Amino acid sequence: MAGAFGFKGCQKIRGPQIRSLLEAKDYILFDCDGVIWHGEKAITGAAKVVSSLIRHGKNVVFVTNNSTRPRENYVHKFCRLGFTDVMLEQIFSSSYCSALYLRDVVKVCGQVFVIGCDGLRRELQEAGIPCVEEADDPDATIYNCALAPDVKAVLVGHDDQLTFLKLAKASCYLRDPDCVFLATDNDPWHPLSSGRILPGSGSLIAALEVASGRKATVIGKPSRFMFECISSQFRGVDPAQCLMIGDRLETDMLFGSNCGFDTMLTLTGVSQIEEAQEYRNSELTTNQSLVPDYVVDTIADFLPAFEGLEEQEEPEEQEEKSN
Amino acid sequence: MAGAFGFKGCQKIRGPQIRSLLEAKDYILFDCDGVIWHGEKAITGAAKVVSSLIRHGKNVVFVTNNSTRPRENYVHKFCRLGFTDVMLEQIFSSSYCSALYLRDVVKVCGQVFVIGCDGLRRELQEAGIPCVEEADDPDATIYNCALAPDVKAVLVGHDDQLTFLKLAKASCYLRDPDCVFLATDNDPWHPLSSGRILPGSGSLIAALEVASGRKATVIGKPSRFMFECISSQFRGVDPAQCLMIGDRLETDMLFGSNCGFDTMLTLTGVSQIEEAQEYRNSELTTNQSLVPDYVVDTIADFLPAFEGLEEQEEPEEQEEKSN
Repeated sequence: MAGAFGFKGCQKIRGPQIRSLLEAKDYILFDCDGVIWHGEKAITGAAKVVSSLIRHGKNVVFVTNNSTRPRENYVHKFCRLGFTDVMLEQIFSSSYCSALYLRDVVKVCGQVFVIGCDGLRRELQEAGIPCVEEADDPDATIYNCALAPDVKAVLVGHDDQLTFLKLAKASCYLRDPDCVFLATDNDPWHPLSSGRILPGSGSLIAALEVASGRKATVIGKPSRFMFECISSQFRGVDPAQCLMIGDRLETDMLFGSNCGFDTMLTLTGVSQIEEAQEYRNSELTTNQSLVPDYVVDTIADFLPAFEGLEEQEEPEEQEEKSN
Repeated sequence: MAGAFGFKGCQKIRGPQIRSLLEAKDYILFDCDGVIWHGEKAITGAAKVVSSLIRHGKNVVFVTNNSTRPRENYVHKFCRLGFTDVMLEQIFSSSYCSALYLRDVVKVCGQVFVIGCDGLRRELQEAGIPCVEEADDPDATIYNCALAPDVKAVLVGHDDQLTFLKLAKASCYLRDPDCVFLATDNDPWHPLSSGRILPGSGSLIAALEVASGRKATVIGKPSRFMFECISSQFRGVDPAQCLMIGDRLETDMLFGSNCGFDTMLTLTGVSQIEEAQEYRNSELTTNQSLVPDYVVDTIADFLPAFEGLEEQEEPEEQEEKSN
């Protein structure tokens, strides 16, 4: 039916087709949550897939909207879950890229008011960007609290310690039209293993957009900025050489489309294949950007594809140590 | 110019024109904040205007989106600020009308999870609607907290004690499609005398709409439901007999238009006459619903209009006491 109506995308692929695809791509971009792991549990086979890709000379990059931990902690997490060959330079989180944006694009002169976790603050500090220190005064209200005089940006990310006071302070800072309004990502919610959900940054941004009457600049997927960070670090990347693999149509697939990558949906996370097919069959042309080119059940489906793929020569042990 | 382009509305009126208008109307509907008072300070002359209208036999009704206090407290506040003849039955707050909606329209069987102030909970209790009691456990998180099994509605109003946990709990309850999603009002923010702003219910609703992927039913202005409550209490009200007076184009004027009332903007609150004129001159026909028919600087401009207006006979003192 798909063919008859000229639909494309959502192609479920296996071993040999995956092999051809991987042969054609130099950069493999992975989302993390729902693709590589669920919380503290790695997707079965994911570690082997990642190390095989690296061993086969692919540039493997992790592009995550999760702003709650600094990149350093990601390296530890990768290691803890059995991904022993992932390095800091391969990790592009929305907190890291937000810090780059504030430092290199905005060139912010003044303090940043952060709604977010400590990990986000740590990334800003690493980049030399001062954040407003929050006094822990239980009696403070928006009527009586101090507001910092030199706040030049409000940055919103996931914050499980959000309070009304933080929201109110951010709204007040944003009254200054010169105060930049930035968001790490726009994820609306996150699934928990219990079946419960966690409101995401997108939820907090919506609150602040309504209170301030302004629109936030979003750093994370599906915005292109994270690709600009990747491209800048790798000194130019041809989008045609990139494959974006993710579990969320509205962030990962759209990010891939926005950047001109081939895209792959893995069914171990948020989005179902039926939703992808619905977008594909929709008459709205904008929905086509949400349709993955390829679909796999899990990235473990890559494993048979490596059989017979040419491996890059291992560097000598001596050299490896000196790196 | 206005005439040449066929614009209507935004008519600035004074003494004799106000008198004619009042003569034509039986119901005078007032917003409170920015119209009658600013916080704890009455607008100069407002108390005299209200008591003159009542003395002249008008049905004076207060229609407020402010959900933070029960109606009883409004009576006290009116009295405290010199409005000594305002009674409970004249007050239609978004919390009171939300309680009526849950009781009489939804006929909710189960508990209501409330994001809001104590005043909102009190109105629900008055209407016999049980609310989820919140345990005050500082260690509770959405990962480990209890969720009530019988929540049939989430009601969101202004809440200066909002926490991430409340937002997360509400998002979880709303995963049940049979759980009603209700909001007292959609006010985006409120001005404080310090020049600061307070995020309004509309801000919190936006957060929850994004996290839940659902749209809230809004009780307060500009929704028509509060007029249905008024009309039900007064056993039928002809909209042509009503004048809505408010300070906010997007709530008060739109509410009036939605209900078929004549509308009047008073310039003692949020909206400026320039904004009203912008809406009037706009090519978007939907914007016309935001344009007030009349504009006054303050409702104190009514005072000269009462001179020579026929007063209703005062009831005898004996009768007054027995009421």
